[in-house]
Amino acid sequence: MNVKLASIFARRSVRKFTSEPVDDLTVKDLLEAAMAGPSAMAVDPWAFVVVRERERLAEMAEILPYGKMLGHAPLAIVVCGDRNRTHRGLESYMIQDCSAAVQNLLLAASMLGLGACWLGTHPNVERMEALGRLLALPEHLVAFATLAIGHAAEFPPPRTRYDATRVYYEQYK
Amino acid sequence: MNVKLASIFARRSVRKFTSEPVDDLTVKDLLEAAMAGPSAMAVDPWAFVVVRERERLAEMAEILPYGKMLGHAPLAIVVCGDRNRTHRGLESYMIQDCSAAVQNLLLAASMLGLGACWLGTHPNVERMEALGRLLALPEHLVAFATLAIGHAAEFPPPRTRYDATRVYYEQYK
Repeated sequence: MNVKLASIFARRSVRKFTSEPVDDLTVKDLLEAAMAGPSAMAVDPWAFVVVRERERLAEMAEILPYGKMLGHAPLAIVVCGDRNRTHRGLESYMIQDCSAAVQNLLLAASMLGLGACWLGTHPNVERMEALGRLLALPEHLVAFATLAIGHAAEFPPPRTRYDATRVYYEQYK
Repeated sequence: MNVKLASIFARRSVRKFTSEPVDDLTVKDLLEAAMAGPSAMAVDPWAFVVVRERERLAEMAEILPYGKMLGHAPLAIVVCGDRNRTHRGLESYMIQDCSAAVQNLLLAASMLGLGACWLGTHPNVERMEALGRLLALPEHLVAFATLAIGHAAEFPPPRTRYDATRVYYEQYK
């Protein structure tokens, strides 16, 4: 693995966190990174809800089946898709743009020495609706992805899952 | 912008390239970065077609309305979604996972001193079908995103599009 790309290989899903809080400047860094992602026609069809209240995090842990760690994480960021801003109103572009923002945010967390985990939310209607109620989201904002974030208490090693059988040259053969 | 995140802010869309080719080792670096992205339940629903033949690149430039630069780019990588591998067969997960892989690939290109541009392909059926024919893709592989890549001949400055009005705390207000 090329050492110049070490920060990309170092990003792993982290589900265990210390109790140390994540400060406001760091949260802004994470959101700046997310909003540096590309979006189709630069419409930026996204919004972000920063959650640090213990009770709300506990409710999110109940809503998301793989999100039990939110019960002890100091921070969650819910990445929302904005239906009103999506290029041509097409859901695919909303998903693409929000996913690129999520990936930037996950990489930024790793680069800043934090751990983070992407908890799938869209397209599960039950999860999206429950989060929508909890966060008082208006109709045009869709709870798309939930990120659990904190100071890492586990340190999975860098890796790729490179698989040469997934690579074709000029044509599928 | 936090200097630790400089590589994230430095990634910009680059549409002008020198004629210098991109070597095989660099192509592998890019694909290793792409496949280091997260995927729902780690099913990795993706495949990659590496295109460097001039005639094929010229045909791709015809297919993609914003892809004229492929007529002079030394390299394109078509990121394909694999319907057979997608978590629960849900298109949203395929889009999410492939988008994270694309973002990793774009960041890696930037980190390696290359330029790249994400050319929207999914959900435009016409583009997907035309690329499917050109690359002889089987039914289960969907042409999802096309990346034009090369040694940069333009150098847009680092930036975020951070917008404080897109950020909420605890609830939408």
